[in-house]
Amino acid sequence: MGLNIKPLADRVLVEPAAAETTTASGIIIPDTAKEKPQKGTVVAIGTGKKDEPLTVQVGDTVLYGKYSGSELKLEGNDYLIMRESDILAII
Amino acid sequence: MGLNIKPLADRVLVEPAAAETTTASGIIIPDTAKEKPQKGTVVAIGTGKKDEPLTVQVGDTVLYGKYSGSELKLEGNDYLIMRESDILAII
Amino acid sequence: MGLNIKPLADRVLVEPAAAETTTASGIIIPDTAKEKPQKGTVVAIGTGKKDEPLTVQVGDTVLYGKYSGSELKLEGNDYLIMRESDILAII
Amino acid sequence: MGLNIKPLADRVLVEPAAAETTTASGIIIPDTAKEKPQKGTVVAIGTGKKDEPLTVQVGDTVLYGKYSGSELKLEGNDYLIMRESDILAII
Amino acid sequence: MGLNIKPLADRVLVEPAAAETTTASGIIIPDTAKEKPQKGTVVAIGTGKKDEPLTVQVGDTVLYGKYSGSELKLEGNDYLIMRESDILAII
Amino acid sequence: MGLNIKPLADRVLVEPAAAETTTASGIIIPDTAKEKPQKGTVVAIGTGKKDEPLTVQVGDTVLYGKYSGSELKLEGNDYLIMRESDILAII
Amino acid sequence: MGLNIKPLADRVLVEPAAAETTTASGIIIPDTAKEKPQKGTVVAIGTGKKDEPLTVQVGDTVLYGKYSGSELKLEGNDYLIMRESDILAII
Repeated sequence: MGLNIKPLADRVLVEPAAAETTTASGIIIPDTAKEKPQKGTVVAIGTGKKDEPLTVQVGDTVLYGKYSGSELKLEGNDYLIMRESDILAII
Repeated sequence: MGLNIKPLADRVLVEPAAAETTTASGIIIPDTAKEKPQKGTVVAIGTGKKDEPLTVQVGDTVLYGKYSGSELKLEGNDYLIMRESDILAII
Repeated sequence: MGLNIKPLADRVLVEPAAAETTTASGIIIPDTAKEKPQKGTVVAIGTGKKDEPLTVQVGDTVLYGKYSGSELKLEGNDYLIMRESDILAII
Repeated sequence: MGLNIKPLADRVLVEPAAAETTTASGIIIPDTAKEKPQKGTVVAIGTGKKDEPLTVQVGDTVLYGKYSGSELKLEGNDYLIMRESDILAII
Repeated sequence: MGLNIKPLADRVLVEPAAAETTTASGIIIPDTAKEKPQKGTVVAIGTGKKDEPLTVQVGDTVLYGKYSGSELKLEGNDYLIMRESDILAII
Repeated sequence: MGLNIKPLADRVLVEPAAAETTTASGIIIPDTAKEKPQKGTVVAIGTGKKDEPLTVQVGDTVLYGKYSGSELKLEGNDYLIMRESDILAII
Repeated sequence: MGLNIKPLADRVLVEPAAAETTTASGIIIPDTAKEKPQKGTVVAIGTGKKDEPLTVQVGDTVLYGKYSGSELKLEGNDYLIMRESDILAII
């Protein structure tokens, strides 16, 4: 695809997975009142902060908090741009 | 079981113990208005923050605050992902 | 007694003294609107934070703020787990 | 054009792109309740903070949060002056 | 008197002076709406924080803010335990 | 004029420009709901903070946020005293 | 006069100037809704914080924010005790 976007510093561009109740790997996002992590794929990363390179890499599937990041549309697709610290885990 | 999940930085994945009033080791979670610690088992840990490796290890039984962490379901089980600083003690 | 619990980092497990109006050493917790320190015995301590070992030791009688810590029951007794910074003084 | 303005420290002067629903490169700013990134061109930059030179350069097209920066008019045009940390990505 | 109490870290035990309108040295606590400093005698001090020994000493007469510290009774007398940073001046 | 005032640390004394809708250099302060930068001339500066000398100099024309600083009158003129971090740009 | 008071750390004892509309040096405290700096004379200073000696000296005439410091009466006069960072400028 070759997205022409460079997130700044510790920011990461994530393509959210489609809403689903059960994924191929069996992850189910529970429907409760607590903050629910969301799943997506990392499509672009920043260069990190001084002395702190990023841990996630392009292609990683990640979980992140429900209200993390800012939405943007790029070539017709929805993305989220967030700080790496908003990412909970790589799955 | 071999869960395929890598918590980021100082995050820890905990499998909560089933609700109970008395455990084998005699711990009772009191039912009062104050914040009540919860019990669970560590199933995955992050790599820690720069210069601060984690203290808890996979397999530890831990106590944590009632509202700590984010819920997620993984292969049909409920887990919580939280920062190590949300963990009060290893029992 | 040999409690099997390891508080994390700078946390301390305290067994609160029974409610009383006058203690053997003459301490009376006044009944006013201001925050009242409470008294208890340290029964387990963490390993401290990086470069900051703990000051209190197991067996110390300590004063702490009224709303400090989280309650837990262990082998039938009530305890509080709190950060050492919640402890005001050793008496 | 030669604007005679020197943003201080980590501040950046941005000329916002005209409101649009679809750009040449296909970026669409979605119309939802979440914070929407905006697009603009960097026209002047500060000298950075101590030991932290700026990453963006004059001429970069950048995305920034909807409520970032202070408005000012300069030689008849509208600009925003904001901190580099308000900039999400270079596109 | 030999009070058996060790304030922790940067905490100081103060015996408040009796309420008065004019002291021997002429200090009058004004009765206005602004925060009024109070006067007392330091009776016990902590060991200070890392690399920061305390400045006040046992026996110093000090001024402190009206709402500083926690009250406690010890051998029949009222005391306040507060951080040294709550102390405004030695008089 | 020789104002006899020494701002402390990172503070700067600014003489605000008269209210205007268009300046000689074409700057127009827009009249919208967003925070509007103001313009003025630096007439005195502090010595900076430890290891951080100031960037602005006496005589610089600067832009600053609408609610920055404290007003004072000196020899019949109105001034604002503010921290250098309240200054957005030199024009 | 020889006031017997030692402000702690970065605190400064200031004797406020009498309320006035125009001073000898022409300073007029404007009567508007914005925070208005006040004027006074430094009569005692602390020893500063670690590695940060104070800048103001006993005898300096200073401007400070309207709500800075705590009031106290000493030998019949009104004083304010405040942190040096509450002082805006030396005049």
